[in-house]
Amino acid sequence: MRYELYYWPGLQGRGEFVRLALEEAAADYVDIALVPEEAGGGVPAMMRFLTGDHVQHPPFAPPFLKCGKQLIGQTANILLFVGGRLKLAPVDAAGKRWTHQLQLTLADLITEVHDTHHPIDTGWFYEEQRAAAKQRSAAFLAQRLPKFLGYFERVRQRNLGRGPGLVGDAVTYVDLSMAQVIAGLRFAFPSASRMALAACPHLQALHDEVFARPRLQAYLASGRRVAFNNDGIFRRYPELDI
Amino acid sequence: MRYELYYWPGLQGRGEFVRLALEEAAADYVDIALVPEEAGGGVPAMMRFLTGDHVQHPPFAPPFLKCGKQLIGQTANILLFVGGRLKLAPVDAAGKRWTHQLQLTLADLITEVHDTHHPIDTGWFYEEQRAAAKQRSAAFLAQRLPKFLGYFERVRQRNLGRGPGLVGDAVTYVDLSMAQVIAGLRFAFPSASRMALAACPHLQALHDEVFARPRLQAYLASGRRVAFNNDGIFRRYPELDI
Repeated sequence: MRYELYYWPGLQGRGEFVRLALEEAAADYVDIALVPEEAGGGVPAMMRFLTGDHVQHPPFAPPFLKCGKQLIGQTANILLFVGGRLKLAPVDAAGKRWTHQLQLTLADLITEVHDTHHPIDTGWFYEEQRAAAKQRSAAFLAQRLPKFLGYFERVRQRNLGRGPGLVGDAVTYVDLSMAQVIAGLRFAFPSASRMALAACPHLQALHDEVFARPRLQAYLASGRRVAFNNDGIFRRYPELDI
Repeated sequence: MRYELYYWPGLQGRGEFVRLALEEAAADYVDIALVPEEAGGGVPAMMRFLTGDHVQHPPFAPPFLKCGKQLIGQTANILLFVGGRLKLAPVDAAGKRWTHQLQLTLADLITEVHDTHHPIDTGWFYEEQRAAAKQRSAAFLAQRLPKFLGYFERVRQRNLGRGPGLVGDAVTYVDLSMAQVIAGLRFAFPSASRMALAACPHLQALHDEVFARPRLQAYLASGRRVAFNNDGIFRRYPELDI
């Protein structure tokens, strides 16, 4: 069964959390954003599922994954679905649940990161809400980011004797997402993230170990991974990095 | 098995989405916030799980549910877990997944509602961020709220011939959550929500049908349901309701 991943082209965004899992598992998948429109891919293919009257279970927004006749939306829900199939989640139900709970907590962090540069209106340009963005970023970097990172560092610590990641005895999709968040934070807030991560040696090690995995190394070298840029969730505005 | 629900006392908040499911199913549960501290309840009982070194799978934040030795956090994850057990979710895996996807989309809406009154810093008072709150609310009410409600109205429409709610052939936990969101919107934004809901007759009917259910009627009459107030997610500040 070939998976079809639908997401915006030109940015990592939430789609990247799904891509990393598919790449790490060497899954058979098509990134529809990379398929030319003339060949039935790209944004028009995605929009047909978002707005089409024929779609029984329409997603609210990308990313979504097509697997046979199933259309699955919400990043954490997609990862919950593919996690077991790709052997990137614990086998037992309680372990799957805990992994999903951590992924949902990461999703909350990711939403807060997005709101640092768009605290007022996602439809406005950043420049139109820069003053509020500075305030929101200051609060995020001072209070929320250390709280989230401290939480995940503690979760990693409690699993140190058991396995290489946050959960159970093997690498799971939430480890890949955690590493991606750290990479994104380092892009968006090089200075503030260095300070925040100084208190999180285990998360730093997790980041390095995840991105050193052979299949992710191959993915990074393939040119298929979009570079971080200011269209994604993690954006670099030096005035916010305080 | 008696469930233990851990959440802040004095507000509905995200805990209410779990309470509605437990009440509708007449589940055996204890709301720890209502248990006096002297009897081992209240906030100290909750904090022990959030901060205790002995907790193997600590939640990041309330609400969380204790079920035997399992501790389950993240509202949508809790509902995914109890949904099947309480017969408030479809029996098949694809139906459970779709229900969960809708709940996660509601969770996104709920986060945006919260940010209307706290767009800058959750640690500040509302009054300290009122100017930004006005801007964020205006954008939310003009763009985001109609988009979310229109989506759920469409989902309800596509299920009209099949069942009484958003999903499948029976009432599910996401119907209860949808009704709660509508009630909250009407509290927070009486004027703007009236306009937005005028385009959503099926969602309005769903709200009425959910809160007319005998067990939820009994819950509302019991005095156990906290009234909406300005400590929760949905807060009434007349200057934001435009």
